[in-house]
Amino acid sequence: MAKLDESAKGVYIISVTPFTDSGVLDLDSTDRMVDFYVEKGVTGFTLLGMMGEAPKLTMAESRSFVQRVLKRLNGKAPVVVGASSPGFASMAELTKAVMDDGAAGVMIAPPGTLKTDDQIVTYYENAAEAIGTSVPFVLQDFPQSTNVHMTAGVIARIIKALPSCVMLKHEDWPGLAKLSALRAMTDLRRVSILVGNGGVFLPEEMERGADGAMTGFAYPEMMTEVVKAYQASKPDRARDIFDAYLPLARYEQQPGPGLAIRKYVLQKRGVIASAALRKPGPKLSALDIAETEKMIARQTRRLQEIG
Amino acid sequence: MAKLDESAKGVYIISVTPFTDSGVLDLDSTDRMVDFYVEKGVTGFTLLGMMGEAPKLTMAESRSFVQRVLKRLNGKAPVVVGASSPGFASMAELTKAVMDDGAAGVMIAPPGTLKTDDQIVTYYENAAEAIGTSVPFVLQDFPQSTNVHMTAGVIARIIKALPSCVMLKHEDWPGLAKLSALRAMTDLRRVSILVGNGGVFLPEEMERGADGAMTGFAYPEMMTEVVKAYQASKPDRARDIFDAYLPLARYEQQPGPGLAIRKYVLQKRGVIASAALRKPGPKLSALDIAETEKMIARQTRRLQEIG
Amino acid sequence: MAKLDESAKGVYIISVTPFTDSGVLDLDSTDRMVDFYVEKGVTGFTLLGMMGEAPKLTMAESRSFVQRVLKRLNGKAPVVVGASSPGFASMAELTKAVMDDGAAGVMIAPPGTLKTDDQIVTYYENAAEAIGTSVPFVLQDFPQSTNVHMTAGVIARIIKALPSCVMLKHEDWPGLAKLSALRAMTDLRRVSILVGNGGVFLPEEMERGADGAMTGFAYPEMMTEVVKAYQASKPDRARDIFDAYLPLARYEQQPGPGLAIRKYVLQKRGVIASAALRKPGPKLSALDIAETEKMIARQTRRLQEIG
Amino acid sequence: MAKLDESAKGVYIISVTPFTDSGVLDLDSTDRMVDFYVEKGVTGFTLLGMMGEAPKLTMAESRSFVQRVLKRLNGKAPVVVGASSPGFASMAELTKAVMDDGAAGVMIAPPGTLKTDDQIVTYYENAAEAIGTSVPFVLQDFPQSTNVHMTAGVIARIIKALPSCVMLKHEDWPGLAKLSALRAMTDLRRVSILVGNGGVFLPEEMERGADGAMTGFAYPEMMTEVVKAYQASKPDRARDIFDAYLPLARYEQQPGPGLAIRKYVLQKRGVIASAALRKPGPKLSALDIAETEKMIARQTRRLQEIG
Repeated sequence: MAKLDESAKGVYIISVTPFTDSGVLDLDSTDRMVDFYVEKGVTGFTLLGMMGEAPKLTMAESRSFVQRVLKRLNGKAPVVVGASSPGFASMAELTKAVMDDGAAGVMIAPPGTLKTDDQIVTYYENAAEAIGTSVPFVLQDFPQSTNVHMTAGVIARIIKALPSCVMLKHEDWPGLAKLSALRAMTDLRRVSILVGNGGVFLPEEMERGADGAMTGFAYPEMMTEVVKAYQASKPDRARDIFDAYLPLARYEQQPGPGLAIRKYVLQKRGVIASAALRKPGPKLSALDIAETEKMIARQTRRLQEIG
Repeated sequence: MAKLDESAKGVYIISVTPFTDSGVLDLDSTDRMVDFYVEKGVTGFTLLGMMGEAPKLTMAESRSFVQRVLKRLNGKAPVVVGASSPGFASMAELTKAVMDDGAAGVMIAPPGTLKTDDQIVTYYENAAEAIGTSVPFVLQDFPQSTNVHMTAGVIARIIKALPSCVMLKHEDWPGLAKLSALRAMTDLRRVSILVGNGGVFLPEEMERGADGAMTGFAYPEMMTEVVKAYQASKPDRARDIFDAYLPLARYEQQPGPGLAIRKYVLQKRGVIASAALRKPGPKLSALDIAETEKMIARQTRRLQEIG
Repeated sequence: MAKLDESAKGVYIISVTPFTDSGVLDLDSTDRMVDFYVEKGVTGFTLLGMMGEAPKLTMAESRSFVQRVLKRLNGKAPVVVGASSPGFASMAELTKAVMDDGAAGVMIAPPGTLKTDDQIVTYYENAAEAIGTSVPFVLQDFPQSTNVHMTAGVIARIIKALPSCVMLKHEDWPGLAKLSALRAMTDLRRVSILVGNGGVFLPEEMERGADGAMTGFAYPEMMTEVVKAYQASKPDRARDIFDAYLPLARYEQQPGPGLAIRKYVLQKRGVIASAALRKPGPKLSALDIAETEKMIARQTRRLQEIG
Repeated sequence: MAKLDESAKGVYIISVTPFTDSGVLDLDSTDRMVDFYVEKGVTGFTLLGMMGEAPKLTMAESRSFVQRVLKRLNGKAPVVVGASSPGFASMAELTKAVMDDGAAGVMIAPPGTLKTDDQIVTYYENAAEAIGTSVPFVLQDFPQSTNVHMTAGVIARIIKALPSCVMLKHEDWPGLAKLSALRAMTDLRRVSILVGNGGVFLPEEMERGADGAMTGFAYPEMMTEVVKAYQASKPDRARDIFDAYLPLARYEQQPGPGLAIRKYVLQKRGVIASAALRKPGPKLSALDIAETEKMIARQTRRLQEIG
């Protein structure tokens, strides 16, 4: 499999981790999920992201899940694996394992202990050295979750210092000015920028120079179609699609029940067999489900109206 | 002026603080802004909220601003004043002053030093004692900003312990389950619940028992009309209106440039003379403005479509 | 090996993790370190604590280190293993492995995402279920590091709900009133309470009902002798010893260089072959070393004076 | 009164705020306290620091307290006033008032919203502009309380950019390497560095280039004598004094009851009439008081031994 590089674009889906109702890793649903995402037009996959349920897997389960996705894909799309870890030894170990399995690169989020610009840059220098400078990595800028705040200047320092940094996952809330500032730096190697946050700022991010999205809305077609519309220079079409999905995207993006809603929708769409989450995880109320259903119905109607 | 009580509903607008281009408090724009909000159907006002620019005012400016709004309103709508303070002596002093001026009640957010359930409850007991138990107050639950996390159980303890707590400002992100839990407590005095966060979860909150909104979107008519539609049992109509405004509401809700966008729109609508913010505050880029304009145009078109 | 129970007392040393100068896990030094700690009078060991360098080990290294300590001890002292983990599956897996190897129990610190009393209690209920209710565990209350704040009431709820909670690691900064409150609860099962923070509040904690310490000062004899003096009802003797060590204990307790200082002293004392830390970790400056040496000299002199 | 400048040294005492038992500002005790501190050898005063009870005062009480201290001192020692504020308008207003009253300068701590190096520098540029560049100010680096983390590099940027920054209050925990790094910068204007944290790292800080302390232990003679011993090149004498006071200094430094302990001791020493704290504030238990008394007795004995 080709390694990840700065030309990556489109939608790298952050996939859910399917479990059976009793909480066992569901590899059959994994296959179906892979097919579903490919069919909806994603250009890549991101597994074991720091959000979601990756931390609920044992190391053996994590390996098994990654291998199953890689096998099912069989080279049809690159796979990025989250390798964030409290220690460099574990990070290096997991990175080596998944790269040997055929991953295209890894993604690294900073630990919450980093407080200053210099600490952030040094951390990434150490991390790149630990995983090996031949392994391409994604720099994840996700302050709401990591509590680490990177300026455009700090991100630029990392990109300049580390050739193996080929992509930025732009996931500030929403950090639009930061994205514009990075794209305006004429002396900076152009890396791929994919955006997160469930895509709820996708139009603005595409207009400011993002290459696509790396996130996990239960309607990946929203993201693939918005990105395609921008690639075809049809911004109004992009916003028509986006606006139709926005009420549900916003709802699925809420902390707490968000992931349960995403799994509920994916189960409803026939992608995964069970919407079960491992503990700790919320259970949807009847009201949550009714609201979701109402928004799906409205969304369907609206999509028909815009054609 | 009547005091705030548990029957409050509708939209209590969180007003901006108008400045001239040179940063002087703009009392003429204040008058125009009061008229504008009344015309758009708000049922109350909230001044000196913890977000926005209230902390940028001196005490004398704060007093002057509150008095100007009260004078212009001349009893047409109740005014709640933010009285959150690091110390009870200042909180009591400000509360006495604004209640004497004619405010209907005060709003109190918890300081970020509160870490446990008991600390939160004790803090509100002390605060209620400090301001005087005859002064109605709004409990502000806004964890993203305060970093204080209240369960429904803690809120219920406060409501039970303190008869002068007549309203909850529900501003978790978005805390829908908490709202439902509070409304399901059959042994709890029913207080007014108004919601925040720029109204971006208003439909779900109304459907779960909120009485309206206390927040500050530059199109207050979105909120007043959505609330009215729910009061008239027209939930689909409410969502049609909401969805039309959602792209801009989401955009205005972003931390950082959000308040500058709100002021830009209010200036554009002729409400305030200048969009200036006092330092520290962001400046909008040409791109921010272009995006805002595009969304306003699309919003106008969509509102015409839904009639 | 007997399992940990509520009668545990004395000093459970938080051991360092010895590396060679090139960063390889040093199992020969591990043996020597085990002997040293036993000779200094510790009654138990705690491995893979959340601070220190445990997160810098791979899973295989962690297992190897635990097994080496268990083998060297050969039943001479109980071993508690830190099992805190972002997910219950990993926590259960590690717990099963180390209990099979002969550990006496595990220690669990709460994840920083817990914000309310109820969330904390629920987390421990789920954790105890995940590891199996026959496995004794230590509740670690260490808010400076976890950012989770537990009242005495919350700790009592956990102790009451979970019979397998047999020990509290009291490591608030310093939370003396909390310790007193717990010991004053007449309806609460008496669990063992061992204290942390490098022992810098050990006299006050012993006087308030602690059973000893679970922490890692490079002079473990300070802690074992202070505890013994209290057990022999000689509080003044205890404070004489404590005061003699306090300047260095305070210095070693500083965040940042603290662990490097501890390793420096242990190397100097002939316990470990190298003072090396794995990245990320501080390097001592010449000044750090000079200060350490000066305090050791003064400490030696003072210990001679008190006899 | 002369203005504060880079040559400041010795001990700037962070004074307590005396209240009567009923919580009224106690100006008679204020006079006695001023005399006491002067008699113990302090070279300056710092009022309305961000810790302690300054936020519990109304603006009028704050002004009255500052004026009383200034009047009593009558020019005998310079007074620095804490002017940290959520907004620049209030900061400027308070600064102007106290400088007109005769203060020597103000102290400014950063708000917790600052997350990046650039944000910190910009904040101080704006603050210095707001208060006027002729007003000398103290940069307070106190991350445990502010949650703002400054590198030596950031502090140097501020010192270079702002001539009115004449002093650093060094109050990291304990940030010894940062202090050394600043003193090693040969291209940096030498500002005064006074240290905080109750003086519990005072010897190491003096040896690394601090000019004294700005903090508030109830035995200010510990700090004035340690500083004098270093000025007289008697480091061993300095450590003898320091070590004698350390058990109590450590105890008084604990978060929570610390300030109540300090007031208890000051009352016991006849300095203030009442140890009362305004709410919210802890009450000492019988155990707290017994421990304090025991440590004072031991401290007295030890001081006699060292002569």
